[in-house]
Amino acid sequence: MEEIIKKNTRKISIENQILVIFGSNGDLAKRKLLPAIFQLFLDDLLPENFILIGAGSQEKDEKSNRIDVQKSLLEFSKISSTSFPERLQDFLNHLYYKQVNNKTEEDFADLRIYIEDLSSKLNVPKNIIYYFSIPPFLYEVVASHLVKFGLNTEEDGWKRIIVEKPFGYSYGSATELDKKLRSGFNEDQIYRIDHYLGKETVQNIIVTRFSNGFFEPIWNRKYVDRIEITAAEKIGVGNRGGYYDTSGAMRDMIQNHLMQVVAVIAMEPPSIFDSESIRNETVKVLQALRPIQPNEISDYVVRGQYIATEVDGKLQDGYRQEKNVSANSKTETFVAMKLFIDNWRWGDVPFYIRTGKQLPERVTEVIVHLKPAPHQLFKQRCVAQSTNMIILRIHPDAGVAVDFGMKIPGAGYKVQNVNMAFHYSDLAENKISEAYERLLVDCMIGDSTLYARADAVKASWKFVDPILQAWKTNPNIPLYFYECNTWGPNESNALFGDKQLKWRNPFKKFKTD
Amino acid sequence: MEEIIKKNTRKISIENQILVIFGSNGDLAKRKLLPAIFQLFLDDLLPENFILIGAGSQEKDEKSNRIDVQKSLLEFSKISSTSFPERLQDFLNHLYYKQVNNKTEEDFADLRIYIEDLSSKLNVPKNIIYYFSIPPFLYEVVASHLVKFGLNTEEDGWKRIIVEKPFGYSYGSATELDKKLRSGFNEDQIYRIDHYLGKETVQNIIVTRFSNGFFEPIWNRKYVDRIEITAAEKIGVGNRGGYYDTSGAMRDMIQNHLMQVVAVIAMEPPSIFDSESIRNETVKVLQALRPIQPNEISDYVVRGQYIATEVDGKLQDGYRQEKNVSANSKTETFVAMKLFIDNWRWGDVPFYIRTGKQLPERVTEVIVHLKPAPHQLFKQRCVAQSTNMIILRIHPDAGVAVDFGMKIPGAGYKVQNVNMAFHYSDLAENKISEAYERLLVDCMIGDSTLYARADAVKASWKFVDPILQAWKTNPNIPLYFYECNTWGPNESNALFGDKQLKWRNPFKKFKTD
Repeated sequence: MEEIIKKNTRKISIENQILVIFGSNGDLAKRKLLPAIFQLFLDDLLPENFILIGAGSQEKDEKSNRIDVQKSLLEFSKISSTSFPERLQDFLNHLYYKQVNNKTEEDFADLRIYIEDLSSKLNVPKNIIYYFSIPPFLYEVVASHLVKFGLNTEEDGWKRIIVEKPFGYSYGSATELDKKLRSGFNEDQIYRIDHYLGKETVQNIIVTRFSNGFFEPIWNRKYVDRIEITAAEKIGVGNRGGYYDTSGAMRDMIQNHLMQVVAVIAMEPPSIFDSESIRNETVKVLQALRPIQPNEISDYVVRGQYIATEVDGKLQDGYRQEKNVSANSKTETFVAMKLFIDNWRWGDVPFYIRTGKQLPERVTEVIVHLKPAPHQLFKQRCVAQSTNMIILRIHPDAGVAVDFGMKIPGAGYKVQNVNMAFHYSDLAENKISEAYERLLVDCMIGDSTLYARADAVKASWKFVDPILQAWKTNPNIPLYFYECNTWGPNESNALFGDKQLKWRNPFKKFKTD
Repeated sequence: MEEIIKKNTRKISIENQILVIFGSNGDLAKRKLLPAIFQLFLDDLLPENFILIGAGSQEKDEKSNRIDVQKSLLEFSKISSTSFPERLQDFLNHLYYKQVNNKTEEDFADLRIYIEDLSSKLNVPKNIIYYFSIPPFLYEVVASHLVKFGLNTEEDGWKRIIVEKPFGYSYGSATELDKKLRSGFNEDQIYRIDHYLGKETVQNIIVTRFSNGFFEPIWNRKYVDRIEITAAEKIGVGNRGGYYDTSGAMRDMIQNHLMQVVAVIAMEPPSIFDSESIRNETVKVLQALRPIQPNEISDYVVRGQYIATEVDGKLQDGYRQEKNVSANSKTETFVAMKLFIDNWRWGDVPFYIRTGKQLPERVTEVIVHLKPAPHQLFKQRCVAQSTNMIILRIHPDAGVAVDFGMKIPGAGYKVQNVNMAFHYSDLAENKISEAYERLLVDCMIGDSTLYARADAVKASWKFVDPILQAWKTNPNIPLYFYECNTWGPNESNALFGDKQLKWRNPFKKFKTD
């Protein structure tokens, strides 16, 4: 146990630094960021001299901020904080607070002074991460204010900004946002967080593919028939209706998360294992996406919206009944699409991706369907249709499984598909870190591998933008309604054409939570 | 449950027939054959009109024979026969007995009359299997007596003979035996039983390889580094010392069993799945074995013999102390060897095979070691040496496992080998049949796939004969002694040359019995 923890602990030291969270009183900070930082602290993954500055519009002093944070940690931290009373106190001692109205320029002059004072008083160099835990429309504003008061200058220590998705709303706005951010920060200072990429299994896909002799030989058009990627959510939009209704599944899930998963699945092996090399390869995939022509959109993309449904005797609201959602909203809560990657490796291999809300299970998995053996020796003897699959389960119960044909015991040579699975949790005697923890440490040490790079973000927007445009402007493209607790509209199966195929339900060998 | 049993039951009907067991009072018949036939009876796999004639040198009548068989079934059958009293009685009603001295010609004239009487009285056609459960030196004698009295003629029904290994003692004697048998029987009437080939997992290797899209692409010299096959026995020679001392591990295990496993692992895909096509492919492998030159034998083959050892505080006899073993015997109880198959698929891929008695575990498994990925992307980050293996476990706890590198959870990209396994027993809700049951049914329906064909037997002898000759004639070839409960002489690792490799111990994910 001890040994494994040691193995998992980075040997590299993390420089003393300052983390400023804009929007520190917001939901994301309370639910995700602060618990993640506290966990890093408990795991001894924070530097010794570490300052955490909450920057929020609320007026409060350091002491009441610490009480607030303590309260939210007790509520949202997975660790029972009460069992670490001393450590919790230690942690809170690193916390500071500065009232900042993001739109008020002068507040940033004050912030600068506040940071300088703390820095010299506590002897922490001005290595600063600015975490933008704020609505996207404020990214440009805060960035320009930081620049205005020289808070971006690296003369006295490195500066990095972390921005949350969405990175833009369209290809145009993403390009514009990037331009604005880049006027004060270099690309290597900008960390675009995509918590999907922080997931262990997404990272593991890279290792699984490239550290083993037997995946790469079949990982191409010669052996792969098609690839399916499903990211299903069991819940609806909940109280995020206001945001979601202006976004929809394409912007919320496909443009960022699923495109990144596609990229990691499809990428060429990098020659060096570092951030730039990996991102050079993933962006190549996104740039090779075959554009979907406006007149093809109905053949390649199916959108859906959940409707009111009785589930287990209880009426579940439809999307249009959700809070802050327009009563005749055409926002999609489900997208299934077919795409092609025009390169040597994947030429003409279809990738089918889908995501949706109010589906029967919360599950994210990749299924690599292999072509059947070239000669069906046991054709007459197969009980089940013999297809081979490699399943990469991202969530929940992350793992890898292989589905293949074996002989049914007994006389004769009847073949039945069986499977074997590796559950990632078997490897970890200690817990698997949350995406945010992983990503925060990466930013602290300047490793941007798992962050989205501007060119990738743009390539992905370039691909989805025409679809969004067509949906908006072409009234003939249908929006299909689907009942809650189903796998979306039946029309999504039409993407497979006349192949008599269907979306595959999640792999049963993995338990779902 | 019912459905699976139905699936496993042959739909084909088995013709009414007669089974004559020569040596019916012997050990093999009592311990293996009769329990297997009884099991087939319980599984409704025997034809309705079925006659089982015991033919032995002992003088006894039908009734006392039935009592004898009942006794040995109660002792050796895995099913508690007492729980099937009626079925047991039913079964015994099919049993008959004829005293036959194998060396006495006239006894076969009587046997013929006895069979004819039973055949017409019980209305069973003269489809006859003659099972030679007798010492090999008697094969020719019994065969010639059968021929002499026309018991081989197929005018009034098919005739088949089943012979047990060893099929000869050398290339010369095997050829001679074959010639003798063939003077009265055609090749398609001769069933050379090799219970190894009746094992489900050996058969499953064929299905695993050829019904799946992802084994074949890597099953060749491009991706396979080496293949290891281990067939280890935990026990010594016991009371078989007399036989064993004239045989040794090379004749007892390598020439037949392990060569057949090599053939099934290495064979090309047949174009039709039938007995002849499969055996055409396996014999090609054996014929492609690169002959080991007399001066190379010490580099390619290591022989050993177990010596007296204290195991768990108890002194275990050495081989030379075993009953009926010569006190200065040079018979090998352990063989490890390296061999090459000179064809396009396997050119220069070494196969390492070993077998031995008094080893730490009873286990038979095949390990396909894949070459490392061509580019070691995670070289500096590997905790364990990253090699991929596909493990085909034949016995015990038959199954398939894959060993591969995965990322250790946590920050960074450290790689550790993990594995996933499929246990064959998971597929069978009903029991996996014993090799003898399977093989008997095959012979009854005339399916010789899992029986050794003459050309394969000869090819295998041709390969091992020069080694046996050299051992016999060249006093400079060492016989290494090894302690009981070890994996044989350390010198067996020298077969790997300067590759710094060693024999791999059996895969731990499979439990051993």
